[in-house]
Amino acid sequence: MSLIVQKYGGSSVANAEGIKRVAKRIVETRKAGNEVVVVVSAMGDTTDELVDLAESVSPSPGGRELDMLLTAGERISMSLLAMAIKSLGVEARSYTGSQAGMITDDRHGSARIVDVSPGRVREALDVGAIAIVAGFQGFNRGTGDITTLGRGGSDTTAVALAAALNADVCEIYTDVDGIFTADPRVVPSAHKIDRITSEEMLELSAAGAKVLYIRAVEYARRHGVTLHVRSSFNNNLGTLVVNPQDGEMMEEPIIAGIAADRSEAKITVVGIPDIPGKAAQIFTIVASTDANIDMIVQNVSSTATGLADISFTLPKSNGARVLRALEAAQPEVGFASLQYDDQIGKLALVGAGMRTNAGVSAKLFTALFEAGINIEMISTSEIRISVVTRADTLDDAVRVVHTAFGLDAEQAAQVHGGTGR
Amino acid sequence: MSLIVQKYGGSSVANAEGIKRVAKRIVETRKAGNEVVVVVSAMGDTTDELVDLAESVSPSPGGRELDMLLTAGERISMSLLAMAIKSLGVEARSYTGSQAGMITDDRHGSARIVDVSPGRVREALDVGAIAIVAGFQGFNRGTGDITTLGRGGSDTTAVALAAALNADVCEIYTDVDGIFTADPRVVPSAHKIDRITSEEMLELSAAGAKVLYIRAVEYARRHGVTLHVRSSFNNNLGTLVVNPQDGEMMEEPIIAGIAADRSEAKITVVGIPDIPGKAAQIFTIVASTDANIDMIVQNVSSTATGLADISFTLPKSNGARVLRALEAAQPEVGFASLQYDDQIGKLALVGAGMRTNAGVSAKLFTALFEAGINIEMISTSEIRISVVTRADTLDDAVRVVHTAFGLDAEQAAQVHGGTGR
Repeated sequence: MSLIVQKYGGSSVANAEGIKRVAKRIVETRKAGNEVVVVVSAMGDTTDELVDLAESVSPSPGGRELDMLLTAGERISMSLLAMAIKSLGVEARSYTGSQAGMITDDRHGSARIVDVSPGRVREALDVGAIAIVAGFQGFNRGTGDITTLGRGGSDTTAVALAAALNADVCEIYTDVDGIFTADPRVVPSAHKIDRITSEEMLELSAAGAKVLYIRAVEYARRHGVTLHVRSSFNNNLGTLVVNPQDGEMMEEPIIAGIAADRSEAKITVVGIPDIPGKAAQIFTIVASTDANIDMIVQNVSSTATGLADISFTLPKSNGARVLRALEAAQPEVGFASLQYDDQIGKLALVGAGMRTNAGVSAKLFTALFEAGINIEMISTSEIRISVVTRADTLDDAVRVVHTAFGLDAEQAAQVHGGTGR
Repeated sequence: MSLIVQKYGGSSVANAEGIKRVAKRIVETRKAGNEVVVVVSAMGDTTDELVDLAESVSPSPGGRELDMLLTAGERISMSLLAMAIKSLGVEARSYTGSQAGMITDDRHGSARIVDVSPGRVREALDVGAIAIVAGFQGFNRGTGDITTLGRGGSDTTAVALAAALNADVCEIYTDVDGIFTADPRVVPSAHKIDRITSEEMLELSAAGAKVLYIRAVEYARRHGVTLHVRSSFNNNLGTLVVNPQDGEMMEEPIIAGIAADRSEAKITVVGIPDIPGKAAQIFTIVASTDANIDMIVQNVSSTATGLADISFTLPKSNGARVLRALEAAQPEVGFASLQYDDQIGKLALVGAGMRTNAGVSAKLFTALFEAGINIEMISTSEIRISVVTRADTLDDAVRVVHTAFGLDAEQAAQVHGGTGR
């Protein structure tokens, strides 16, 4: 008997029809002889609607009370799902984050899981019931208050429960068939990836792939949880995100996939005196705003002027406050001016095989050059290369790179035909 | 410093405007130097909408999961209310029934309070915060499951908290100005009652007065909690429901008010063999259906036939199942037939002064007779007389009785002018 954790997002349970469809699927999994734990998000746009309500009664809702409010969303979806399953003749019990033992710190709105003690979930399984657990929420043992985990919280709940219950697999249900080599809306020839390492998935998520949240992937990687990302609208196998053991051989394609991201902006600090410590001073100011800096490029200083430029990318939503902080520090730092550019796009090429394959960068740059696409910034890790382009050339960039690395569906069939993937 | 418990119903917090208005009122109470605990119901029609959702995924939702679902309603209203109060610069913390220590038995959907340990509420008050508590909900210590208290649950939560915290008064906010001598929509000359005993209020609630639930009144009476029923739309004083101590003299008007009820039906069991034990047999069958029997009348048996009739009233919603149970038992009991009549109305005249005033019944019957209204059943307690009439004569009956007992607004001013009420 396998223990399967399934996570259904808001779009899968957006209405009564969706809930009944998901209930049927869960019951089938149970009747196939598995123990089943289900993590569910709030229905459709419920969370956004609750945030709107909060903003209609308070100029700056947040903290304890906003978490109390938002957790009503999963309370509704999880109890409805339990009822729908019971009406199919199978016992089901729903549990809040607190009842399921999701213990967190006290950072309301972005709480971190500190312990998982799913005693009641285990008891439900032991009597043959399906356990339904509210995603996204937990509670703080010290204050006794309800917390929420922030963006991607339900994925994280599912992975954390899978780890604590030693589940065989954690299935993440979504409205697409799995992880693709690139966004199929941009690259029609993109194909589903059958199997990817958590290391690669981490890079793809970090680079903007939306299907899985980076935090859930990190948790899965750290605790050795196997993820299966698949569609709730069909029975096709999706993408397995696996954790190969040290030394385990795995047939790795050079490139797993391409992620594209339009959510970032670029700030350039122009005319910085080229004396030691200036970069540190600038990024200390940036860090004080809690902004998430991604790529950083420092231009060589002109010997003529003795001045350098530093550019960095960050989420557009962080832009205004970082600019404000830097402007305030201009006299102290002594730079000439600031430039803000929110028309950039970022392309990331990810693949564990890259490590042992020279020439990946060269092939990437050549493909972009031949397509007339200008590269503005470059950053690399062991298994990823990211480049920044103009936003309006990003889609073209993804398509030419997808083709250049042999990822298009027909090519892929040939390339991977003999690897048994 | 007084400790005031305030309860706001769903119509008072139906939307963002309502929540902000109520928040302002609560803050004023706090700033007047009082400790304030607020019990709040779900917004507007939220509970009905959640029940509809439940019925759309399950043919017979109920039990643990329905309670889990419904409690989302107060979670939303209480956290929004806390946010609205905080945005006015006053600290507020919301607590679920479970966090507020509302401990109940495990009867889902109609749980009874077994203990109230509002430690966290008391702590919030001690640091100067306003405590907002979810009405209608509790939890069972044995199973750890969330429960709901059933109809009128939020009133009961407020009264139970007021008792446990030893509050000075429990204010029940509603959309009318207080308790009236009769329904003002039926009797335009009805006037607000300034002060009524909990004993009288109990009889009025039992007889169909909708403003206060009988269960909350019973709890208040048992624990000596003073209620103040008033409007959330103005600052007028409403109706005080008081508990005079034994021996305490209270100037009591003969008649406090009149309640009318159209929600009952009458079942007549025709042609019962007039032998001992038949009535017991019939009401044992009725009791097995969990129906709430109200009035019972047994006709004298005709000596010619040796057969008797028994009529009783019960909520219309119980009618079908009681008829089914009696029909099934017809051979065994040996009655001739059953009659079902859902076109009855019930009028109840309530007043503690009735105890020491002869002639109240005579005056009531005379008033109805002179108006040509036929009385079908009569039942009395020490401080109440109820009569059943045709449903279509009920409004007329209320009006003539209201006038006959001097309750019309102008008359009342004369009658009670010198009593200091």
